[in-house]
Amino acid sequence: MNVRSNGERTWHWLKTTRFLCLLICCIFYIYCVVPISAVWAQPGQTRSPDDPLTLGAVNPAPVRIWPVNNTTLITGQRFDLRVETTIPAEQPPMLQSLTINGEDVTRTFQQGIEAEMAMAGGELEVGMPPADSGFLGQTLRNYSFDQPGNYEVSAIVTLDGEPITVTNTYRVQNFQPADGLNKIILMMGDGMGTPLRTGARIMEYGIQDGQPAGHLQIEQMPELALVSTHSLNSLIPDSANTAAAWVSGAKTINNALNAFPDNTPDNPLDNPRVETLPQYMKRNYNWGIGMVTTAFLTDATPSSFASNIRHRNQYESIAQQYFDFYDDAFYQPATGYQSLAELTQPVDVLLGPGARHFIGDEGLSEQQFKDGSVRRDNQDLITVAKEQGYTFVTDLQTMNAAPNDRPIFGLFLGDFRPDAALGPQNIPSALDLLVSRGQATIRGRGAADLNPPIPPEFATIPMLEEMTAKGITVLNTLYPNGWMLQVESSQSDKLAHPLDPDRTLYEVLTLDQSVGVARAFAAQEGTTLILVTADHAQGQTVGGTVDTLAIQEGRIDLQEAMRSFTDAGFSDYRDLDANGYPDESDPPNKLVLGISARPAFRTDFLTDDINLDPALEEDGSTPNPARNPDGLLLTADLERSTTVANHTADDVPLAAEGPGSSLFNGVIDNIEIFQRMAAAISGVRERGQLAALIPSDRPSVLAQQTHPASTHRTAYHS
Amino acid sequence: MNVRSNGERTWHWLKTTRFLCLLICCIFYIYCVVPISAVWAQPGQTRSPDDPLTLGAVNPAPVRIWPVNNTTLITGQRFDLRVETTIPAEQPPMLQSLTINGEDVTRTFQQGIEAEMAMAGGELEVGMPPADSGFLGQTLRNYSFDQPGNYEVSAIVTLDGEPITVTNTYRVQNFQPADGLNKIILMMGDGMGTPLRTGARIMEYGIQDGQPAGHLQIEQMPELALVSTHSLNSLIPDSANTAAAWVSGAKTINNALNAFPDNTPDNPLDNPRVETLPQYMKRNYNWGIGMVTTAFLTDATPSSFASNIRHRNQYESIAQQYFDFYDDAFYQPATGYQSLAELTQPVDVLLGPGARHFIGDEGLSEQQFKDGSVRRDNQDLITVAKEQGYTFVTDLQTMNAAPNDRPIFGLFLGDFRPDAALGPQNIPSALDLLVSRGQATIRGRGAADLNPPIPPEFATIPMLEEMTAKGITVLNTLYPNGWMLQVESSQSDKLAHPLDPDRTLYEVLTLDQSVGVARAFAAQEGTTLILVTADHAQGQTVGGTVDTLAIQEGRIDLQEAMRSFTDAGFSDYRDLDANGYPDESDPPNKLVLGISARPAFRTDFLTDDINLDPALEEDGSTPNPARNPDGLLLTADLERSTTVANHTADDVPLAAEGPGSSLFNGVIDNIEIFQRMAAAISGVRERGQLAALIPSDRPSVLAQQTHPASTHRTAYHS
Repeated sequence: MNVRSNGERTWHWLKTTRFLCLLICCIFYIYCVVPISAVWAQPGQTRSPDDPLTLGAVNPAPVRIWPVNNTTLITGQRFDLRVETTIPAEQPPMLQSLTINGEDVTRTFQQGIEAEMAMAGGELEVGMPPADSGFLGQTLRNYSFDQPGNYEVSAIVTLDGEPITVTNTYRVQNFQPADGLNKIILMMGDGMGTPLRTGARIMEYGIQDGQPAGHLQIEQMPELALVSTHSLNSLIPDSANTAAAWVSGAKTINNALNAFPDNTPDNPLDNPRVETLPQYMKRNYNWGIGMVTTAFLTDATPSSFASNIRHRNQYESIAQQYFDFYDDAFYQPATGYQSLAELTQPVDVLLGPGARHFIGDEGLSEQQFKDGSVRRDNQDLITVAKEQGYTFVTDLQTMNAAPNDRPIFGLFLGDFRPDAALGPQNIPSALDLLVSRGQATIRGRGAADLNPPIPPEFATIPMLEEMTAKGITVLNTLYPNGWMLQVESSQSDKLAHPLDPDRTLYEVLTLDQSVGVARAFAAQEGTTLILVTADHAQGQTVGGTVDTLAIQEGRIDLQEAMRSFTDAGFSDYRDLDANGYPDESDPPNKLVLGISARPAFRTDFLTDDINLDPALEEDGSTPNPARNPDGLLLTADLERSTTVANHTADDVPLAAEGPGSSLFNGVIDNIEIFQRMAAAISGVRERGQLAALIPSDRPSVLAQQTHPASTHRTAYHS
Repeated sequence: MNVRSNGERTWHWLKTTRFLCLLICCIFYIYCVVPISAVWAQPGQTRSPDDPLTLGAVNPAPVRIWPVNNTTLITGQRFDLRVETTIPAEQPPMLQSLTINGEDVTRTFQQGIEAEMAMAGGELEVGMPPADSGFLGQTLRNYSFDQPGNYEVSAIVTLDGEPITVTNTYRVQNFQPADGLNKIILMMGDGMGTPLRTGARIMEYGIQDGQPAGHLQIEQMPELALVSTHSLNSLIPDSANTAAAWVSGAKTINNALNAFPDNTPDNPLDNPRVETLPQYMKRNYNWGIGMVTTAFLTDATPSSFASNIRHRNQYESIAQQYFDFYDDAFYQPATGYQSLAELTQPVDVLLGPGARHFIGDEGLSEQQFKDGSVRRDNQDLITVAKEQGYTFVTDLQTMNAAPNDRPIFGLFLGDFRPDAALGPQNIPSALDLLVSRGQATIRGRGAADLNPPIPPEFATIPMLEEMTAKGITVLNTLYPNGWMLQVESSQSDKLAHPLDPDRTLYEVLTLDQSVGVARAFAAQEGTTLILVTADHAQGQTVGGTVDTLAIQEGRIDLQEAMRSFTDAGFSDYRDLDANGYPDESDPPNKLVLGISARPAFRTDFLTDDINLDPALEEDGSTPNPARNPDGLLLTADLERSTTVANHTADDVPLAAEGPGSSLFNGVIDNIEIFQRMAAAISGVRERGQLAALIPSDRPSVLAQQTHPASTHRTAYHS
């Protein structure tokens, strides 16, 4: 997005709407001496290096405070309080005053920062821009509000002689664990919008007498909400900021994990951060933390649970945070983790693929994982994990055999076939795993008959529901007092991007099987809250059916293959072994998903043996000539630079069951998932009681006990 | 869909899946003397003339009973009990026995039919196929079950010497009105899937600090469910069977309204029918009935409330049913309505467009409505209505001036501009009405500046929220004891079909304004239940934004215009007059909906002055050359015969508020809307109490008082 043309457009808009222009001028005149709103347009202003994109509806204010305005925190939740400028000044800008609820905390703030700097031994780690850069940036780490109520944080910064005031408002929700809920299983189908749930249901259960002949486990959960998913810099989010929103309660920009952008050059570890609920629960109440995923373990969704970092692609740093092990000369001096370690917590259950971010040349051979890559710093985190007491496992058998009373770290094979869109860092699709186990076919063919064949090693890889079962058992054995587990079915997004709708629907079913495992556990352990949602949607719809035999036999022109509306009739998938998955992905009459927000591609509506890129890598409006060259051409909806199907802004469904589940209903924002989980732990069971958690008070911070630079830590496993 | 190829496919499937084949053979052997399942495949069988499409997952049984299997009725709800064959026999088939819960009712059934036939004076009206046709078809009208519980209706029919047994199961839910709920407002956005709600919210309220800056009225309602919408003959429904499902509780096939297909030639009035909740409430408790819509009044959704007919396109017959006026020589002899009149009830509030189905040459001039068409039977139902005591109104002013203590019948102008996709029978789009009132612009242009200009008469047409307000007031004045009102925002579907996403989103907002009216009323009258849902979805997604100025100024190649994912940033609609609608449909940064399940079309992403057909009428894969000839080509997802965007099978959201609203949560089927409305009227407030309404008993019908051919009627207005 071009910044200059943004400004030009704004001015054009003002010119062409004279009344609006007049109104804006009046407002400017009247309010020119009061604080500049955080969302006021500043045409022509330049951007900070770390924040190239629009924040809020228009351009960012020249001064801003992090956490972002309108965040709801819980009492005692740690966050980094940062004041910074976003445009370079001629003279070094100065923080003139910082007040919280009218109390001057400027001195406390700056003393805290000085103490941090002394400890860190440098500027970068505390996010101070160089003094001669024309930017101001000061971060007080690990601040918190201990009293519930409303907090107004107001900074006055002198910018080239002009005092600029910015005020952020925070709502602080009372948090006090109560009996009745001490386990949370947060499950998500990445990219799982409403149509994917419908499609998976039809596929597995069919329709009888016009009614669904069965319902997904997800659909049998009693409570339902729709969740808005926008990020701080786009109405369309990525998987990092969304997962961060529900674990920390704070909106941030795309690609950020429990951290906000800042104005320093992109060291992703010095940015202002916010504590996640699992980190908070482990720090204060010794709850266990677990993550189970089919994506590489350092991918955005699992990372959200236990890392704080500006950019999701800093995988190797994220991996270190999982083990609270910072012996790293690669990203920044070890001292840089000083304050980070105040937030992060070791993860007790880590099950998923993605060895490349955990192993070095000196560690286990990467060939074991067929991953073809190692850490750039050559650290071997597997050894670190073992030293910390983890059982390390690499396949279904060793995973199931692992003791339940030790933390567990599993690294499994990815889809190592050349050309596989998922790649060796991600677990192969559920359909391919089922085929490898002899539990599904693709047009009647088994693993050996496909082109390329499915390698026998795939049968050693655990499926998501198996990882879920182990994860629950280990956490519940290690932490009977309480724990949080995140379970991600990742490939419902990763296989939708390259337009593989059949495999995408199987991924919803593997999530659903995992939900079944969680529900069976919760039926025994009544203090368990289960939430099943998605981080965002993609542009699918259950559009109709095709006659796969007519297509295979060439009896139908592909443009005529789709049967929509009344002609769609019904699909006829079968699950004769009743394992929760159709036995064949191309039954005679199969579902077809319509897909928008997509690049150009060709399709013959049949399940591809292996998933190839849909469009040319350099031009999303030209289909990949290697993929279904005789298929029906479907042109691109999107700009050429987009070569895979994209996320969308549609609200996503959330299902809830267990104590506090009735708090999840109606339309909520994804940050409210955090707020309501915290309320549920605090014993709230009725939506009408939520408001009482945040009294209308404006508490005094000077009277509070806060914990900047506290050294309170839970022990490592050993 | 070709029947023969269906059979071939089935056999191919059986051949290629040997284990399945063996299993099926075993089941055949074991069960060959027991009833043939209603869903058993009968390869090669022919179809009945009235039912060309697949029923259920595979082919229909040779004998079937209506209502469809697995229907949930309420105690006393009337239905036509029909036994029929679906394949022609060599000898006339015979009904050997009919039992209900094991009690033989064959004689009662046939005596009732003989009595009906004597009254009707012919065969056709009771749906008897000609004796020499090889079909059996017998319908007992207006039957009901008075005791709650489970009913097994079993028929044995001799078909060419072979006795064939078919059994349908019905669940009968106890119904007994209780205090606390006596008004239901059922509102729907036709075609309004999840993404249309998200899109309308972003458009009207925007996003601030990453969070929605406001919520729709619909979204502020406390309860939410997802609703499955499949029909009896396709996973993708139309608007007739879906609306019928929630008012009568019975699934039927596409295009049918509270009636089932039968095996007689297509006289749409002799088919087996089921009573709707408003009909039932008026018959038994003198509740008022109203319908308000932007679609022609005899269109599928409004018709569902108060008509029973096999095919939605029998508009003139539907119009007669609204007034219980059957002086008709066109469709069938007047006596044919004898039994129909046992179900239908006059409608007290009728507000919408579509004069052509109510006027004749002798009545008011059709020119007054610019509709260009009249009833084929030349009846003037306006005169009939006036004689029955209705106030007849034709514009906003006369509507608002009409007395509140008389039934009201309003017929308003449609979109009479030549080439308008909506046509003169439907009210113009909300956007066009706003432009006509000077409350919105299209790229800065008002009504006179568009091409073609918006006619000044549009400013006399009431908007949906205005009709809703009047409808509520009249019903509540006339029927303080109780009433049901259906409000339909039709154009969110009718404008999505020809791919006009901007106007489609304005239609969601006009529904939302109407929901605001209903909620304001309900806040005063605490005995009101409001439900807001959709009949089905279309394949939209909130895909990104475009820079409208860059497009207008030719600064951007259209393939590059779409900004997706993080590049989407935010849209910047404004509603300075705070009337609930953006003031301009093409702001500098506007939302773009991705659309799948569509024909080919061209787009420049800007709001068209008038909506033209997207593709050639004869070939949906060729874009209409008259529409955006220089626009970006988006190819067809669908078969060539589909020339507009199509419905999809995605579950749709339902919002609920008021007494009983907590019954609407989780995932439900659309027929459960009926069941839960009935439960809510019966005083049920908790989902856990629903099961108790249907005891596990199998009541005796011989001990019950049923009302076949009863003459109980409510009075006409006069």
